[in-house]
Amino acid sequence: MRLRNVSNADLKLENSNYYVKNPQENKGNWLKLFSNNNPICLEIGTGKGQFLINMAKENPHINYIGIEKYPSVLVRAIEKVSNENLDNIKFICYDAKNIEDIFTKEITTLYLNFSDPWPKKRHSKRRLTSKEFLKHYEKIFLNNAHIIMKTDNIGLFAYSLETLSEKGYRLKKVSLDLANSDIPNVLTEYEEKYQKLGYKINYVEAIKEL
Amino acid sequence: MRLRNVSNADLKLENSNYYVKNPQENKGNWLKLFSNNNPICLEIGTGKGQFLINMAKENPHINYIGIEKYPSVLVRAIEKVSNENLDNIKFICYDAKNIEDIFTKEITTLYLNFSDPWPKKRHSKRRLTSKEFLKHYEKIFLNNAHIIMKTDNIGLFAYSLETLSEKGYRLKKVSLDLANSDIPNVLTEYEEKYQKLGYKINYVEAIKEL
Repeated sequence: MRLRNVSNADLKLENSNYYVKNPQENKGNWLKLFSNNNPICLEIGTGKGQFLINMAKENPHINYIGIEKYPSVLVRAIEKVSNENLDNIKFICYDAKNIEDIFTKEITTLYLNFSDPWPKKRHSKRRLTSKEFLKHYEKIFLNNAHIIMKTDNIGLFAYSLETLSEKGYRLKKVSLDLANSDIPNVLTEYEEKYQKLGYKINYVEAIKEL
Repeated sequence: MRLRNVSNADLKLENSNYYVKNPQENKGNWLKLFSNNNPICLEIGTGKGQFLINMAKENPHINYIGIEKYPSVLVRAIEKVSNENLDNIKFICYDAKNIEDIFTKEITTLYLNFSDPWPKKRHSKRRLTSKEFLKHYEKIFLNNAHIIMKTDNIGLFAYSLETLSEKGYRLKKVSLDLANSDIPNVLTEYEEKYQKLGYKINYVEAIKEL
């Protein structure tokens, strides 16, 4: 995604109740922040937030946390969510490779939507479904590891099916044309745009008993 | 595939050394027929035989057996192979649902190329990667179960990834665009035609320790 500089992005983030400034302080205690005992779902690479905000609106009894690396992108999600009145969604600005610093055995489901495909082989470790990342994720799940991924990039999708399978995940649900499947789907900004252009979206729901 | 009546198809089959008339008689003893100790690979739905004949030419130290349900189709494979001088390929006319009648613990790799997708849900048991078929296949493998599948049908492909995963297979190699991958590939008649029209071919290599 092309990045624009957003003036005072950090300031805008810090002024929002939806933003958690020092997420590592909540490690192991995220439910306290939400003041409930509901499941916590995570999206890594939450971008401009449309997917997660709509999920939070549709599912008031589930807590959602969105992680985004770039403040200049996350500020768009914060602007969007500020028009809502939601108590089950929070956003974090953090690098997912350090995910174990902020969560431990408390996440129910991890969403990976249209992650950067990092198409060059020498960059494959940066893909959010690399074996290295999958190893990190295992530390943050409450019980079973549960990853739901969608992408229009067939290279990333094939790679992810291999790594998930290699790491012992079972592919519970697969589609190579999500829009024409019977799988319920909340669109991301990117998906909305590319689906209209006729691109097929690939989907996998994978589970591993820990 | 549309079937044409072939006059004297059965006669043409029986007159060929490449055709095995009573395959159940070789159950457990297929290597005797080939007079060697090389691996035996199987293709179910071998059609007009191009894939298997070219595989046999490229790999003289592997034995190949092609199974096809319809004599009127298999006769085309027999005509094609009769122009070659190969001692590592045989063809069988049989219904794959009774595969356990003709093999036991002697197959190394099973190829499923462009199998009938049986798109209607009520016909899903007829798909060659249904859980029922996968259960039958487990009886015929020598050691590990090893299935290599390709298809242009995204519904069949997604379904197969699910059933293979459900039955404990590990997806060793996946591609959603086989022609543009680095996976070695011998084309089928169907593939040659549809690849030229720009259709993408899906590929999976799956392994299960038995």
